[in-house]
Amino acid sequence: MNRIERLVCNTMPAPPARRDLFGEALARLFEAAATCAACADACLADPEVAELRRCIRLNSSCGDLCSTTARVIARLGSEPGLARAQLPSCALACRLAAEECERHAATHAPCAVCAEACRACEQACERLLSSLGPAEAARH
Amino acid sequence: MNRIERLVCNTMPAPPARRDLFGEALARLFEAAATCAACADACLADPEVAELRRCIRLNSSCGDLCSTTARVIARLGSEPGLARAQLPSCALACRLAAEECERHAATHAPCAVCAEACRACEQACERLLSSLGPAEAARH
Amino acid sequence: MNRIERLVCNTMPAPPARRDLFGEALARLFEAAATCAACADACLADPEVAELRRCIRLNSSCGDLCSTTARVIARLGSEPGLARAQLPSCALACRLAAEECERHAATHAPCAVCAEACRACEQACERLLSSLGPAEAARH
Amino acid sequence: MNRIERLVCNTMPAPPARRDLFGEALARLFEAAATCAACADACLADPEVAELRRCIRLNSSCGDLCSTTARVIARLGSEPGLARAQLPSCALACRLAAEECERHAATHAPCAVCAEACRACEQACERLLSSLGPAEAARH
Repeated sequence: MNRIERLVCNTMPAPPARRDLFGEALARLFEAAATCAACADACLADPEVAELRRCIRLNSSCGDLCSTTARVIARLGSEPGLARAQLPSCALACRLAAEECERHAATHAPCAVCAEACRACEQACERLLSSLGPAEAARH
Repeated sequence: MNRIERLVCNTMPAPPARRDLFGEALARLFEAAATCAACADACLADPEVAELRRCIRLNSSCGDLCSTTARVIARLGSEPGLARAQLPSCALACRLAAEECERHAATHAPCAVCAEACRACEQACERLLSSLGPAEAARH
Repeated sequence: MNRIERLVCNTMPAPPARRDLFGEALARLFEAAATCAACADACLADPEVAELRRCIRLNSSCGDLCSTTARVIARLGSEPGLARAQLPSCALACRLAAEECERHAATHAPCAVCAEACRACEQACERLLSSLGPAEAARH
Repeated sequence: MNRIERLVCNTMPAPPARRDLFGEALARLFEAAATCAACADACLADPEVAELRRCIRLNSSCGDLCSTTARVIARLGSEPGLARAQLPSCALACRLAAEECERHAATHAPCAVCAEACRACEQACERLLSSLGPAEAARH
């Protein structure tokens, strides 16, 4: 994911946050979006699909939220309030998806990798959020 | 948007919330996603594009969040915690986009319609959220 | 979906196509995106989930494609080549999802409504595409 | 982007295509989605925004199409016809976005990186498409 970090760290006009945390979050959000999409489809193909419903749902919602949060984050410089409101919801989705994937990581290989990507994304979201300083009026 | 309400109100297996509020939210979320996409592009085409940057950004983020929140809401029955975490962020995006659109509604016709759609969506999100009852562990 | 049609038919600065076909396509694309999201989740909750895998997959892909095609279409005025390239793929997804939903429409009520929405969207995409005139260099 | 390639190359149950080309396409699609989102916002912030409108539009459509095509591709094993129909449209969006970004790569640093990511994605889409073999009934 070098190009994303290069773009953010070397070329963005106004630094919207600590550039390293910003680049890391963007990279992890798109990585988790990808692993969630692939993991949801692998679970759907599994003979035990009925036992994997929650995993499919959480992967689907987490993937949707990661993709969208990444776009909102890309506009962080101008709308920090929206980013601050959106990051906790995305981190929650990553945590729930990671916890669920971890439950069958031993027997479902895609879940093991996806759990790892979701944990990394959760942490990147939390770190970026912490670096943004106290909220003013993000939540109404 | 009758088909969305018909699908939700008449056919969904497990009622995930008050069906009327759920169908209304789904319909308003996709409506706002559509008007935000069209309004952002109309603003970008405007000779005064430099003055409309914030409107373009907020419309873009609001449209992204509405589309994704609608998908998360569609899985409300099984993951109410995620829906509860995501609705306030989406309502905030709708409010900010509506406020910005209202500022030039008098001179930019697409903004007038988009402001209306965003306000309707903000209210639908708030109403659905209120109906979900007290949060348990949605926010960590 | 009156606001979408009002925005497109009454306020868009440069008419990107026949406004009625454009507004209709935008409305149908977001409607199908909504019914596909709700139908995929209803199928996933079904006791016969194993028999509904293809329906879940096609609904998921169709919903993704409808949402994105709607955004590409919203920029139709400036990039007609992209719209022309994207509409057939979206119409195909709608047709496949409709055919699959129709197969169990008699026993699964959400599929019956979703099939209808997908057919309406397929036709709206085809009509808009026909109105755009012969392609020049849309496909490379 | 190692986790995406690991997930696809080592863990996916049914090989949907040459795994290396599949993993590469998924990684490039999400990378381009990220750089397009960041580049569109950097262009919108530019004092010469009026001259960058086409770049903003193409980046926006390309980012949307890359995200969605990645999800459709993740379901490639079961629905190759849809993947085959969608890849050319996505490759076209990547090519148009790359060409436009290249025009001001010398003076706009984000465009230089984004052009590179879009070219890499265009090629990954083309390679994956070539590997899928002759179409049967993907286009109607």
